[in-house]
Amino acid sequence: MRTIWPAADGRIVEIIDQTRLPHELVVARLETLDDAAHAIAAMQVRGAPLIGATAAYGVALAAADDPSDDGLEAAASKLAATRPTAVNLRWALTEMKRALWEVPENGRFAAAMQQAGEIADADVAINRAIGEHGAGLIAEGWRRKRETGRVEVLTHCNAGWLATVDWGTALAPIYRAHNEGIPIHIWVDETRPRNQGASLTAWELGEHGVPHTVIVDNAGGHLMREGLVDLCIVGTDRTTAGGDVANKIGTYLEAVAAEANSIPFYVALPSSSIDWKMRDGLKEIPIEQRGDEEINYADGWFDGQHIAVRIAPDESPAANYGFDVTPRHLVTGLITERGVCEANESSICSLFPEHAP
Amino acid sequence: MRTIWPAADGRIVEIIDQTRLPHELVVARLETLDDAAHAIAAMQVRGAPLIGATAAYGVALAAADDPSDDGLEAAASKLAATRPTAVNLRWALTEMKRALWEVPENGRFAAAMQQAGEIADADVAINRAIGEHGAGLIAEGWRRKRETGRVEVLTHCNAGWLATVDWGTALAPIYRAHNEGIPIHIWVDETRPRNQGASLTAWELGEHGVPHTVIVDNAGGHLMREGLVDLCIVGTDRTTAGGDVANKIGTYLEAVAAEANSIPFYVALPSSSIDWKMRDGLKEIPIEQRGDEEINYADGWFDGQHIAVRIAPDESPAANYGFDVTPRHLVTGLITERGVCEANESSICSLFPEHAP
Repeated sequence: MRTIWPAADGRIVEIIDQTRLPHELVVARLETLDDAAHAIAAMQVRGAPLIGATAAYGVALAAADDPSDDGLEAAASKLAATRPTAVNLRWALTEMKRALWEVPENGRFAAAMQQAGEIADADVAINRAIGEHGAGLIAEGWRRKRETGRVEVLTHCNAGWLATVDWGTALAPIYRAHNEGIPIHIWVDETRPRNQGASLTAWELGEHGVPHTVIVDNAGGHLMREGLVDLCIVGTDRTTAGGDVANKIGTYLEAVAAEANSIPFYVALPSSSIDWKMRDGLKEIPIEQRGDEEINYADGWFDGQHIAVRIAPDESPAANYGFDVTPRHLVTGLITERGVCEANESSICSLFPEHAP
Repeated sequence: MRTIWPAADGRIVEIIDQTRLPHELVVARLETLDDAAHAIAAMQVRGAPLIGATAAYGVALAAADDPSDDGLEAAASKLAATRPTAVNLRWALTEMKRALWEVPENGRFAAAMQQAGEIADADVAINRAIGEHGAGLIAEGWRRKRETGRVEVLTHCNAGWLATVDWGTALAPIYRAHNEGIPIHIWVDETRPRNQGASLTAWELGEHGVPHTVIVDNAGGHLMREGLVDLCIVGTDRTTAGGDVANKIGTYLEAVAAEANSIPFYVALPSSSIDWKMRDGLKEIPIEQRGDEEINYADGWFDGQHIAVRIAPDESPAANYGFDVTPRHLVTGLITERGVCEANESSICSLFPEHAP
């Protein structure tokens, strides 16, 4: 099963509605551009690579309705506005426009579905490669422990197959290592406010049989100090050409604690998550601010119903920063589809020479 | 209003049931030792100083039923077992036993109520003094900002008047500075898993008119990097004679990030929270592990009802570490009832020479 696919009739697209997990596996139908934009904004789909693939299909759905140049531009603008931090979104839109520009209007829907499918397939291949390279790091960790106990990995948010089309980024090396028989255990940060760790990562790992334990985001530092974490692997929504990493809010705290405790901190990413135009992540990456209801409420399941309970007083204001930026010096390495590199421009460009300045 | 007081008839004790806040202000009656032990274990009362005062009243309630030496010992053992990390609990029990040992059995209940009342009154006076000393630090912060904007303080969990008998520890300086007219704004960590920040600190600050914003625990690092935090003030459940600080899980992450961003990190505490026998907090302080339902569920209010919603998959295990230890080198200063000192043995002993080794 993938997270997004063209429906059998080839006219619309289907997704797993991730807001219903882990308690219900619900498939939602995207019939229009608006459906695709809503799915991204409401986080029925999330995760940088999957946002990119969904945006690509969103352009295709728009082309079914209005294949004109203006129509494509308007669709791309609408989709680009849904989530400001993820760079894959903009990358996928650029790819789609490039593929469709020269196609006559009456061929654009078919070409767009084809191109979106290729973006989705490429994502799967890329993540499989990330898994291979990252599994090597886990195997090293296992050798460092003299092959006793198990490799303890901490992850934040969800960068699993649900965040991509398949396999995942941060979880791809974990699945691979697990499949290869390396004993592994994952500390799963719940990842407030939307709890993608507790709801999605825990569900994924459970379905795949990977041993894991859910913790509150507050617990990572304690586990590191107690020697209970061997390495951290997270995903990213945008990484600069200089190696600064924007990821789910809270990533920076774990990275600072990892450095203080000499624990390797890796970021797994397809190169489509690299913003080649940016150097300084702290100054340049836009940080999405979301509604305060995500902070004042927690949502989950009660008596078979999906509801949100109010935590904070009715009168208290809240602030909801979606992401933070982890500076390159806290990142041990980037796990890409072409191998592992250091989080700096020259090391990144040694793997991706076509982007060298 | 205080958090705990003898009822009008002088035979039982009343408390604010803090599990009902912020949506209901409910007074609960403690009639027996078991009621007091339950109130502590179920966190109807929480916060190191208030746990101490409640334990003192718990000994009194036990003495009403069985004032024998054996009865008192059994009561103290039962109360000591409720929460392993808070040292005030053990301190209050020792104080109570010392006060009652020489009293004939038929006078013990009255003496115990008297002594518990003195412990409660002393707590209020101590916290008032902590407020004075800490407000000086906030005033310094205000001068450092050339008295423009407002002083931005981050706090974790609840160390306000609800965590003590009155005033609070970490929040006492904030109330004092606010009363003195220093413009101040508090970033309130929600403090998963039990959200004492979002539910209790936000409520307290709102009732007192102190500007504040609720954030998820993940956000503190981002705010610090963005220059939006001038200082941090937290409480403690146990601080060693060497200056290591046990406090609510997540405190360590904020302290590491504060150091990385050169932001002062203060701990406010009555000297009854100092464990004079301990030197090395990381090795010696016992860390309470609580039930995994606090992690797998989030509780709050829905349709006027207090309920818990399930976040994680039914099959996923969870771990629930209640506290972490912040090493002394990350602590800028300790705010005590006798003034501010550094987090090391000689500086602490300069304020408390009676405890010098």
